Amino acid sequence: MPRVSDEHLERRRQQILDAARVCFVRKGFHQTSMQDVFTESGLSAGAVYRYFKSKDDLVMALATTAAGDVRARMLEFIEHDPLPTPAELIAHMTDWIYTQSGPEGRIRLAPQAWSLALTDAQAAIPVRNTMTGIRAMWREYAVRMHDAGWLPADSDLDAVAAALFGLLPGFVLQHLLMGDLDSDQYIRGVDTLFPYGDRRYPAPSPAETADAAPA
Amino acid sequence: MPRVSDEHLERRRQQILDAARVCFVRKGFHQTSMQDVFTESGLSAGAVYRYFKSKDDLVMALATTAAGDVRARMLEFIEHDPLPTPAELIAHMTDWIYTQSGPEGRIRLAPQAWSLALTDAQAAIPVRNTMTGIRAMWREYAVRMHDAGWLPADSDLDAVAAALFGLLPGFVLQHLLMGDLDSDQYIRGVDTLFPYGDRRYPAPSPAETADAAPA
Repeated sequence: MPRVSDEHLERRRQQILDAARVCFVRKGFHQTSMQDVFTESGLSAGAVYRYFKSKDDLVMALATTAAGDVRARMLEFIEHDPLPTPAELIAHMTDWIYTQSGPEGRIRLAPQAWSLALTDAQAAIPVRNTMTGIRAMWREYAVRMHDAGWLPADSDLDAVAAALFGLLPGFVLQHLLMGDLDSDQYIRGVDTLFPYGDRRYPAPSPAETADAAPA
Repeated sequence: MPRVSDEHLERRRQQILDAARVCFVRKGFHQTSMQDVFTESGLSAGAVYRYFKSKDDLVMALATTAAGDVRARMLEFIEHDPLPTPAELIAHMTDWIYTQSGPEGRIRLAPQAWSLALTDAQAAIPVRNTMTGIRAMWREYAVRMHDAGWLPADSDLDAVAAALFGLLPGFVLQHLLMGDLDSDQYIRGVDTLFPYGDRRYPAPSPAETADAAPA
């Protein structure tokens, strides 16, 4: 008998995760049973348990994948030159959120993940890691805003990242839950509040950066 | 037998809501049964059902009360003269959020409410109304920012309100779920991003406001 290839294992794992996502989006995490996941995936209990021991394991895997994708999507754009404005960055992210928030889209899991993290200590760990990872991307962006002279030289960049963090949940909540916000309007609002583009603050003088300069 | 006073009815209703809040925060909405609410409140099933027919009714009442309190808290402050900066407004709100986010505090219900709204059409209605009400306060604030010359004359104030909306969920998620953000740092970040205080944009000229002027 041929050995099962890594590719096959990965495809099977993804098949289970897709089924779990569909079940969680449709019925909610708590009302979903492992039996629902077996049925939706078309796989036996044994086949599923080989990859995931519990619903918490499924949440962990879904959250980790989502975090990786959000981070990658932000990072590729943050590294552009010239630096994208906050409105351009949000436009880049909302384009992607649209592709992931259809009737069975995984962005619909985000509010469930937040909720779960408050009542399930096990699920809280991957959810917290996801959010920390996304905030780290905002911090990268804050560093680049600072370098572009958009922020004062003495800014607390962790604090700036924390304040920017709400822009994505803010869109998700209004777009998915309230259902009355399109991305164009949101981007327009962000652009009005953050009219960046030109340097606003002077670059640090050579004396101020001397410590960091090579000897 | 004396008639039951309105005050008594209201006190009893509040007793049930407090018990429901404690149960939902502790166990989550889905794992809470009406029996849990009877036990926590110390009241009989009949006494509770007289006020609330279901868990959805309890969510509706809790969401409506929370929305009213958030709105009142924002509105009293937005109406100050001179206009508070975004950082001052956030400080005013985070002070209050702190008082409501202890181990059994009702702010802990917010992510559950968001989540519920995505999988429970009945619960979605009060949750959506709550969020719409809070965004209306941000719109009030955007109008006042505009009048203070902090925003361009032709700003889309609905869009600005939508973009500001995420500041409160952003704090709640980082403070409650990630547990590593204090309000001072958040306020500092908001202040760096929104360094308002002085007029930035000229007031509309008399010609531009002529249409709105009394004849």
